Amino acid sequence: MHNSDSLPAGDCQFCRNEIIKKSFCSTSQFSAIYNIAPIVPGHSLIIPNTHYISLFELSDQELGEMMVFARKVTRILQTVFQCDGFDWSVQDGISAGQSVQHLHLHIVPRKPHDMTDGTEWYSKLSQNAVPAPDSQHRVKLEDEVYNAITAKLTEASSSIL
Amino acid sequence: MHNSDSLPAGDCQFCRNEIIKKSFCSTSQFSAIYNIAPIVPGHSLIIPNTHYISLFELSDQELGEMMVFARKVTRILQTVFQCDGFDWSVQDGISAGQSVQHLHLHIVPRKPHDMTDGTEWYSKLSQNAVPAPDSQHRVKLEDEVYNAITAKLTEASSSIL
Repeated sequence: MHNSDSLPAGDCQFCRNEIIKKSFCSTSQFSAIYNIAPIVPGHSLIIPNTHYISLFELSDQELGEMMVFARKVTRILQTVFQCDGFDWSVQDGISAGQSVQHLHLHIVPRKPHDMTDGTEWYSKLSQNAVPAPDSQHRVKLEDEVYNAITAKLTEASSSIL
Repeated sequence: MHNSDSLPAGDCQFCRNEIIKKSFCSTSQFSAIYNIAPIVPGHSLIIPNTHYISLFELSDQELGEMMVFARKVTRILQTVFQCDGFDWSVQDGISAGQSVQHLHLHIVPRKPHDMTDGTEWYSKLSQNAVPAPDSQHRVKLEDEVYNAITAKLTEASSSIL
């Protein structure tokens, strides 16, 4: 239902070097990236380093390892941003709202009353056209702010790998 | 951040026998349940058979196995409901919008133009107060319809375990 050949990795915004460099935590297989336009503080993405489009392209082992990695990163984000809950979301396929054709899992750390409606983050996801860290068409964090957050998360993540 | 002792399993609507019986596919650890008020055809839930509240309560191995199971079920749902995409969502913690204090992953099979806005299913999730299969406060599928779908999914799932 997906075709990795449909979009060369070289044209993928998640495969470009400048994006990979922004990762605050990574293994040989997966990377965590702070969202350049977070819908709440802490909003991050987990992506495979390989250009997989769909969750179905991962082996069973890779799928498990991705989620274990995502959970470790979630704990880091909750600690740094002082949150007690989180949302995870995967949009797989264009019909599902997948905006970047490179598999990614959204981690949205949550705290009480952080949104007027506890569930409205999903529509914000759409409004911001997340997750496109290098999009030119929406409001981004200033580089200085982004880099400071990434540095803090990199330091906080050093103990989990 | 979560406390399994806060809600005795006997009071949990996902732990009641009548809910477990509704599963169309299960392993010794996890069950797939068709949503009694699906936001789109195929909307189902993956739950652990053990009364875990949070994703953090699973071992690394259990976390991986839950996702591998969820992916198998997703493929079945896509086949039966003729979908080419899917959304996955976990709301973990009351602040994240978790409505039933028993871990559950939403699978929302998707097809082109199945919603006026491709991302609006999340707000529907809220409006329906999903996932509460035994709630008395919202519109449910008729028993006959629900049972027919579950029977069809049970048959379709027989090959994956």
